[in-house]
Amino acid sequence: MQSAPMKQLTPLSDTQSQRDERRIPIDRVGVRALRYPMQIRDKAREVQHTIATSTLTVDLPHHFKGTHMSRFVEVLNEFGPELHVDNIHTILRELTQRLHSVSAHVDFEFPYFLTKKAPVTGSPGMMDYTARFSATLEKDVIDFVVTVIVPVTTLCPCSKAISVHGAHNQRGQVTFSVRFSEPIWIEDLIRLVEESASSELYSLLKRPDEKAVTERAYENPVFVEDLVRNIALRSNAVPEITWYRVEAENFESIHNHNAYALIEHRKE
Amino acid sequence: MQSAPMKQLTPLSDTQSQRDERRIPIDRVGVRALRYPMQIRDKAREVQHTIATSTLTVDLPHHFKGTHMSRFVEVLNEFGPELHVDNIHTILRELTQRLHSVSAHVDFEFPYFLTKKAPVTGSPGMMDYTARFSATLEKDVIDFVVTVIVPVTTLCPCSKAISVHGAHNQRGQVTFSVRFSEPIWIEDLIRLVEESASSELYSLLKRPDEKAVTERAYENPVFVEDLVRNIALRSNAVPEITWYRVEAENFESIHNHNAYALIEHRKE
Amino acid sequence: MQSAPMKQLTPLSDTQSQRDERRIPIDRVGVRALRYPMQIRDKAREVQHTIATSTLTVDLPHHFKGTHMSRFVEVLNEFGPELHVDNIHTILRELTQRLHSVSAHVDFEFPYFLTKKAPVTGSPGMMDYTARFSATLEKDVIDFVVTVIVPVTTLCPCSKAISVHGAHNQRGQVTFSVRFSEPIWIEDLIRLVEESASSELYSLLKRPDEKAVTERAYENPVFVEDLVRNIALRSNAVPEITWYRVEAENFESIHNHNAYALIEHRKE
Amino acid sequence: MQSAPMKQLTPLSDTQSQRDERRIPIDRVGVRALRYPMQIRDKAREVQHTIATSTLTVDLPHHFKGTHMSRFVEVLNEFGPELHVDNIHTILRELTQRLHSVSAHVDFEFPYFLTKKAPVTGSPGMMDYTARFSATLEKDVIDFVVTVIVPVTTLCPCSKAISVHGAHNQRGQVTFSVRFSEPIWIEDLIRLVEESASSELYSLLKRPDEKAVTERAYENPVFVEDLVRNIALRSNAVPEITWYRVEAENFESIHNHNAYALIEHRKE
Repeated sequence: MQSAPMKQLTPLSDTQSQRDERRIPIDRVGVRALRYPMQIRDKAREVQHTIATSTLTVDLPHHFKGTHMSRFVEVLNEFGPELHVDNIHTILRELTQRLHSVSAHVDFEFPYFLTKKAPVTGSPGMMDYTARFSATLEKDVIDFVVTVIVPVTTLCPCSKAISVHGAHNQRGQVTFSVRFSEPIWIEDLIRLVEESASSELYSLLKRPDEKAVTERAYENPVFVEDLVRNIALRSNAVPEITWYRVEAENFESIHNHNAYALIEHRKE
Repeated sequence: MQSAPMKQLTPLSDTQSQRDERRIPIDRVGVRALRYPMQIRDKAREVQHTIATSTLTVDLPHHFKGTHMSRFVEVLNEFGPELHVDNIHTILRELTQRLHSVSAHVDFEFPYFLTKKAPVTGSPGMMDYTARFSATLEKDVIDFVVTVIVPVTTLCPCSKAISVHGAHNQRGQVTFSVRFSEPIWIEDLIRLVEESASSELYSLLKRPDEKAVTERAYENPVFVEDLVRNIALRSNAVPEITWYRVEAENFESIHNHNAYALIEHRKE
Repeated sequence: MQSAPMKQLTPLSDTQSQRDERRIPIDRVGVRALRYPMQIRDKAREVQHTIATSTLTVDLPHHFKGTHMSRFVEVLNEFGPELHVDNIHTILRELTQRLHSVSAHVDFEFPYFLTKKAPVTGSPGMMDYTARFSATLEKDVIDFVVTVIVPVTTLCPCSKAISVHGAHNQRGQVTFSVRFSEPIWIEDLIRLVEESASSELYSLLKRPDEKAVTERAYENPVFVEDLVRNIALRSNAVPEITWYRVEAENFESIHNHNAYALIEHRKE
Repeated sequence: MQSAPMKQLTPLSDTQSQRDERRIPIDRVGVRALRYPMQIRDKAREVQHTIATSTLTVDLPHHFKGTHMSRFVEVLNEFGPELHVDNIHTILRELTQRLHSVSAHVDFEFPYFLTKKAPVTGSPGMMDYTARFSATLEKDVIDFVVTVIVPVTTLCPCSKAISVHGAHNQRGQVTFSVRFSEPIWIEDLIRLVEESASSELYSLLKRPDEKAVTERAYENPVFVEDLVRNIALRSNAVPEITWYRVEAENFESIHNHNAYALIEHRKE
């Protein structure tokens, strides 16, 4: 019968801090798919509680074997059982200090709710969106990108033009990212996208509202191309936006594949 | 410095076959999320190559500690690098014999394609669906369920009735499962679903086709309730179908949530 | 040039309330994939804010053409911008009354967090789980099912027994549902599952903790079969639990498919 | 009672070809999430049948209102009901010609199978991977990126060093993309990744194989950092590879979040 070889333990040795000889630096290393409760102050000046799915990384110089994964979680925990998004800058600085790195990157994606009134009856409903904060600190410079993922109605201009009645329409989804010179409210980015579509969506619509929304969409047909161009035009007119990337994807009601368009633009 | 304790190996002992004393039988045990190439003969009498995601399980009597997971994969492999769905019955029998079980269950879900012609121009396109074969062998009786997942267009009757022009419509998805007394073609189940919707979907539509599809949907409005009832009615009229379960989910173009309906029925 | 036919509008007519002649009742109809902010009181007597993904349905008698989808959302809204789970019974009653149905069904699935201390250093961390409340009201009787989805470590007994050193282990996921005679805390269900595995998981582990967790898993090997049986045994010993269903799925570290086991049991 | 206004139809007019005055060119526009049967020749010189999920786009100059979505699908269809990957260059050229664009981009992601023998018993099994071909044609230059997504075993060096016995290990996933000066086999990219991990995965392992795989992983511990560095080192040694990007994600068996690392490198 075989028996296991004696093992020389190196208990609690810091394997990660050992010297690495491969001479290959790592661009990003850290933790991913970490869920964490988060608070965010919305434009109505109320605190909104949500849950972020996060990625936290740093760079790793070529001479270290590994990073210390537990420190990423420790840094989050220091801000308490519910993280506030205002702390993102501090988190980035803490990560570079605690992990002796040149750069740090964080990414928090979370559901975001707005109370929205139905267009005719004014019935209030909670409308859900997704938002994402991506921030990178490198040599004391912070690069911050805010993204909103906004569902909308799109109604096909071609289908409307050629059909005796009706026009195919569908739920579409816009992923809109911006860099900015002055802080911008998530609400304002959502609004900019919703005004660029055939209609915005609601969680609660009574019959007079449904009539209004149906007719509004029919009167404002947009291709997926129109949708991204409308958003680009509006973004060009907002001086605080210095860069944007807009993707639109329509879950076509007449096909089992999607229509897609993308514009990315950095202002001079 | 600590060192590891000597280990008494029991090399290659059959841990799974040890006696278990907890006196708890297991309903199903096996492998899941196993991808495997598969062949299926379609109604046009051609062989279609696809890829199944499969679950294979057996029951485990209370006195065995574990099942032998590798045998599930061995049984599949015996049918070669590409499995043919006609072998499902044999696979079930092999599983009960090789794993000394009373029952066996398999589940194969796979993409399925039909060549479909556009309604006016006749342009052909490959339309994709999802199908699933679920089969259970227990005491020599096989229970076989076929499921098709079919995307369709639904146009809202209420929105049409109250609006000056247009009507909201969207992609919907029907999950339709049947038990049967005589084999039924996947194609016939798909057809039954598509005829119950406002319109079927196509992968390729030229402008005259788009006009026809838009107008057809407008002339055939269905609620999610109508959709499941239409399918139930048609199923009632097919004598080979002995049981059915139909779920429909509409990805509403005016909401960010879905409309949903379900009917399950066993014929006497 | 064609022009659209005159349309006779039936503005704001209640299409849903029209008589249906197909004589087919619908088992469940309503809304699905609706996200809503939710509060839950946890065992530490604090309010936890989370976000539920919900399904709300009622039955529909054969003589009605459709249900009124907006009322599902109205019922939720009446409980304010943040729903409290204690209101589930009231929501069910409201749904049957407002929608004139015999039965109603709701389903809320949400992330759930526990502060957990690392086993040696005691460092606190936020550990995330998923919980689900499914409740059906039919003829004044409520059927309530609580589900917890708990990630765990499983270490293979066979691999340990036959190998000179080491043993393959992996993250597994347990989906554990119960019916009960007295209310049970989510925390207690999670604990019951975690004690049945090779080790529980943590969000934060320092080196002494990692050593303890690694050794604990090695000393407590469990097959997926052992895991579901351990949970069944413990459930049998909890008198408040009247029914349970436990599924375990191991994301095997040596295969690209999963090991799976299921036990369902109703106590006499 | 209201009635619908007369509608001036512009039947079959080409809305997409209308002049657009917003002066905003679109970077990419086309179809997404389109499933299509595909053939690929593998290194064993056999044809493998699979199913691709594809994206096809072109750029759109500022003066056109829309692209012609149906032409994307027509181009695919011309290659028959089963596409061969060797036709990707031709597809790109066809897209730019048929859609009058300067550039075209395609993306095909598909399951890919290899017959792999267990390390001791030699038992054959079908091991599944995912591969992706992304290609862009711009001004007659083609930029081609091949990606393989490879599941592996990783065993933690720190956990091994500090524990009396055992070491936590788990399934990890590597996403490895390359540009190249000479064509490279998918098989060779998969091999390069598998040799860089603690162990490769198998679909079928008998007991002697499981012993060998467990011991091999224990003898070859790798952090997620080691994994990406090993792949980078090997890629540096393959002259045909001119650029690479490697991401590794470990589904940690002791945490409910993942460890992650990334290296991207362009050779001079």
